[in-house]
Amino acid sequence: MASPSQVRYAGSMAVSTNSEPATSASLLVEEEWLAWPGMHGGRVMALSAGVATGLVDGLPLRAMSTRFLGAVRPGPVEAAAVLDHASRSSATVTVSLSQDGRITTLSTCSFTASTGEIVVPARPAPEVPPAEECNDFREAELLYPFARKLDIRPATDILPLSGASRAELTAWLRLREPESPLSTMLTLADAMPPGVYAVLDMPVPVPSLEISVHLHRPPTTETLLTGWTLAQQRNVQTGAGISIDECDMWDEDGRLVAQSRQLRRVLENGSLT
Amino acid sequence: MASPSQVRYAGSMAVSTNSEPATSASLLVEEEWLAWPGMHGGRVMALSAGVATGLVDGLPLRAMSTRFLGAVRPGPVEAAAVLDHASRSSATVTVSLSQDGRITTLSTCSFTASTGEIVVPARPAPEVPPAEECNDFREAELLYPFARKLDIRPATDILPLSGASRAELTAWLRLREPESPLSTMLTLADAMPPGVYAVLDMPVPVPSLEISVHLHRPPTTETLLTGWTLAQQRNVQTGAGISIDECDMWDEDGRLVAQSRQLRRVLENGSLT
Repeated sequence: MASPSQVRYAGSMAVSTNSEPATSASLLVEEEWLAWPGMHGGRVMALSAGVATGLVDGLPLRAMSTRFLGAVRPGPVEAAAVLDHASRSSATVTVSLSQDGRITTLSTCSFTASTGEIVVPARPAPEVPPAEECNDFREAELLYPFARKLDIRPATDILPLSGASRAELTAWLRLREPESPLSTMLTLADAMPPGVYAVLDMPVPVPSLEISVHLHRPPTTETLLTGWTLAQQRNVQTGAGISIDECDMWDEDGRLVAQSRQLRRVLENGSLT
Repeated sequence: MASPSQVRYAGSMAVSTNSEPATSASLLVEEEWLAWPGMHGGRVMALSAGVATGLVDGLPLRAMSTRFLGAVRPGPVEAAAVLDHASRSSATVTVSLSQDGRITTLSTCSFTASTGEIVVPARPAPEVPPAEECNDFREAELLYPFARKLDIRPATDILPLSGASRAELTAWLRLREPESPLSTMLTLADAMPPGVYAVLDMPVPVPSLEISVHLHRPPTTETLLTGWTLAQQRNVQTGAGISIDECDMWDEDGRLVAQSRQLRRVLENGSLT
């Protein structure tokens, strides 16, 4: 759920054409979440998930895919969510965001119950210094305006645009104004600079076409999340018009909380060499 | 595109309610692709992608997410695809499959042009013996009927249900009846047994709620794919009601061709311990 400072939320129940439960909401996107040229993708996911959870009774979100059809501009946004399917222990919700009558993003959200014990534990976090011993990376604000909303502490000596030999960026992240775990995790899942920036000297436009997030620890509480998240963004491959990034995220106790994978376009006027 | 032996394809153009280009098709799902209790998920993706590509002129598919709302049964399937957005160099298509008037799967497909050179090469394939030196794994047919359609050659000594210490399965795969690269890659992206089966002694039902596939090498030709694909399925975490698998796939030349990540439910009557 987005914090009141980010959106105004005016949900209303409706019935969609296929008779499934549906909801709609008028949101307000604030300029401070801008990421050239539109709104930050993770923020779009967080807003959309907030609307989707309104249709699902108590089940935690475990997977979400968002397609970016066009830039989300600051100002009013219409959100529409449809409960595509629900059983006692799982549900699927589709959410669209529209501006001026045009759909800008499409998301699908998969919810399923959390029961039982962990049998196969997830891979541990990389060994890095604690966030308190890492320097704030204010330079990120030069890359994208929304970085002002984040506290970013690189945890290795590989920095964006440092011409490194490996396309991997590792940093501690937190929101400067704490929000709910769900909103925070989805926002942070797309908060790292593109992995390919590690090996570049100059930024290149690599806008996202889509992003898929899997949540290993269900964000079940609506208390604010004030702690640090360790994020490791690995570029899997860049070239031939695309750049595919993977991001793993751990909590302060070293538990894997989420993973994302996203498809970026390499714009034809952007030179990578 | 699925082979003629798998589906009958009766596409017809229509215009959807939002005036975007759309298409629909009547398909026939054959029983040989059954995976308890419904149709194989990768096969559902391959069928859906075949319909989606009919709306996109020449752009290769690069990412696809499919949500499984209900089991797809053998017999007639109605497919409907909508071109949500298109530019000169990218496009997004949504595809639904329905049976008896109920939507069983929802997919979104992201297409984008392939241009330029590889700058960050993908991780190399693991070093394993060539497929010809690995034994056929016919036992897979005991786990799911569709395995008869596949030639599966485990490439390490970790087998499904062997009580191994690591939840990772690596195998060479190919379709016994070759198909197009697109159909083959999407089918194989969900062809490995669940990663958690490596550490178990007995099978447990872990049906997929959703799967996201990213394609690193665009399957641009419609020639049949006869070669081997090396697939490595890693279970990232299992427990608390879910099991999340990652699969990387390389071609015979060691080039990463695709990656998938999927959310499986651990059914409450399935014991993992």
